[in-house]
Amino acid sequence: MEPVLANSVRLADDGVHVLDRRGFPFERTWVRCATVAEVAKAVEDMVTQSSGPYFAVLWGMVLAAREARGLPPERAVAHLERAGELLVATRPTNNHLRKAVAAVLAGVRAAVDEGRDVEQGALEGARAGDERYRRRSRALGAATAELLPEDGAVLTHCWADLYLTETVAAAQRAGKRLRFFCTETRPYLQGARLTAETLAEMGVDTTLITDGMGAAVLASGEVDVLLTAADRVTMDGHVVNKVGTLGLAVAASAFGVPFLAMVQAPDRLAPTAADVPIEHRPGEEVLHTLGRRTASDRVRGHYPAFDVTPPRFVTTVVTDRGPYAPDRLADYYADEQGNAG
Amino acid sequence: MEPVLANSVRLADDGVHVLDRRGFPFERTWVRCATVAEVAKAVEDMVTQSSGPYFAVLWGMVLAAREARGLPPERAVAHLERAGELLVATRPTNNHLRKAVAAVLAGVRAAVDEGRDVEQGALEGARAGDERYRRRSRALGAATAELLPEDGAVLTHCWADLYLTETVAAAQRAGKRLRFFCTETRPYLQGARLTAETLAEMGVDTTLITDGMGAAVLASGEVDVLLTAADRVTMDGHVVNKVGTLGLAVAASAFGVPFLAMVQAPDRLAPTAADVPIEHRPGEEVLHTLGRRTASDRVRGHYPAFDVTPPRFVTTVVTDRGPYAPDRLADYYADEQGNAG
Repeated sequence: MEPVLANSVRLADDGVHVLDRRGFPFERTWVRCATVAEVAKAVEDMVTQSSGPYFAVLWGMVLAAREARGLPPERAVAHLERAGELLVATRPTNNHLRKAVAAVLAGVRAAVDEGRDVEQGALEGARAGDERYRRRSRALGAATAELLPEDGAVLTHCWADLYLTETVAAAQRAGKRLRFFCTETRPYLQGARLTAETLAEMGVDTTLITDGMGAAVLASGEVDVLLTAADRVTMDGHVVNKVGTLGLAVAASAFGVPFLAMVQAPDRLAPTAADVPIEHRPGEEVLHTLGRRTASDRVRGHYPAFDVTPPRFVTTVVTDRGPYAPDRLADYYADEQGNAG
Repeated sequence: MEPVLANSVRLADDGVHVLDRRGFPFERTWVRCATVAEVAKAVEDMVTQSSGPYFAVLWGMVLAAREARGLPPERAVAHLERAGELLVATRPTNNHLRKAVAAVLAGVRAAVDEGRDVEQGALEGARAGDERYRRRSRALGAATAELLPEDGAVLTHCWADLYLTETVAAAQRAGKRLRFFCTETRPYLQGARLTAETLAEMGVDTTLITDGMGAAVLASGEVDVLLTAADRVTMDGHVVNKVGTLGLAVAASAFGVPFLAMVQAPDRLAPTAADVPIEHRPGEEVLHTLGRRTASDRVRGHYPAFDVTPPRFVTTVVTDRGPYAPDRLADYYADEQGNAG
């Protein structure tokens, strides 16, 4: 069964429908965005996150093309370019949004060059971007599933989105029997709300723990593999991911549990960890849970949103081209040159 | 300034007043227990925790002595013994409660032997038990403060109660300038609600982080010492404490930060970790935060309440007799024999 979060941004005749992840799974509300401006606002307001904004931008650009219906091609393209700038500005640190805009504009420019309809070109570009992201996630998931035990337990942290759902789907196709432990992932509880729910939807035996319990379950022998996504992997094997990953990776290493980090590709623009600025979010966000205050106003919060796991604590980086040791990531692009040559 | 939690169980003419830690610091409600049965109920209902039940039992036994006023001594002692059984049964795994009952009964028996008033004997026994616990915590705090930097940052987990307040008070008397990071300590948020608030009350610069952020702040160089209490330390140096301690200790070791564990004395009845049963609480407790559900009912929770940190991750065990390396804890009792001899 496909979980709802695997397809939670949808294009329809009346706009783009975005599942509101902020209240998920307690409320399953879809936000309808009738215009590209409404899509931008939804992304900015965190209605969706992880891969959600990528898909929202793809389909938001199609709305922009509809808005440009009837304009001469060059003015339509200019309208789409402005829409792209608006959408990319909603999350300036998310590189995927630029890729989504580029995918749609490529489709539009191809259509214009061939004298075809701009709106049709936008739709083709969006579909190509959607298909590419899903195809790469599927390849990544298949490669990851091969590394998981036939029958065993996986600990995961935060929400690995399509990388996780594709991994589980591939493992299920291969007849593997996996159980999952999920950390709740404070302060926003993505593990409790998104990961645990989605795994349960997929029929996986799912156990939730607090973020402080990871080392205890790793030490106990209950877990065979630690598996997370990575927001970024540097060329020298540093894994940048949601804060909390580092502590789990260090504990996994101490207790002999392998750590697999999933990313479509290592980041050629980040040779090492110094090249990745770590986002610090407002400390106030740590002082609340589900909208309720957790500490009095005498106390300050601190919120490094990501942490950096050095390669000595990483067993394998799994990509859409298969697994790599953290000190062999250059091979990812060497393979590419080989394929291209 | 003495923080409110350092003296949160008080004897008065109208009963024992217990600060309700369940709502602290958002509500500062005192529960008045007019009878020993009401004290037992308050302890059972988790109105107080950590050292609180110890003090509640001391003063609850004084209420029992008041209830026995006018009875012949042997019947009064029998009433107090029954009250002690009732109180100890509220938290069967907390060894401190037996010690509190024994302290009061010792005072009562001494009074009876000397032909003095039972109630007066109970009061003397309770005061002696109160003083002994505070004196040992003060000695522990003074020994710990000596190990802390003149100017630096300490990471702590959960709520180390009087060990923490005495450490901070001793460090302040010595003119040390300490900043604290506190983990929030899910699921009950003792770090956010009790520790952070109490440190702020004491004028300490206090920063709250989620339980998953410990490794990130340890790796960043922002923290000089990891400092926690221990519920139990085995004779071979295993530290049993609130779940989450293990992950912090492993990360501290990986990033070269010393870990100090505070306990009045190592447990002579626990040669090693196998001698300490780990309490597993209902998994349902993990699925809530401040009374609100965090995950849907498709998901199961898992709640090992404590974890066990092996001695290789422990730098120093600080006791009321000073610091010991985790492989030299037998010296604690060797010193005792030396002192006694």
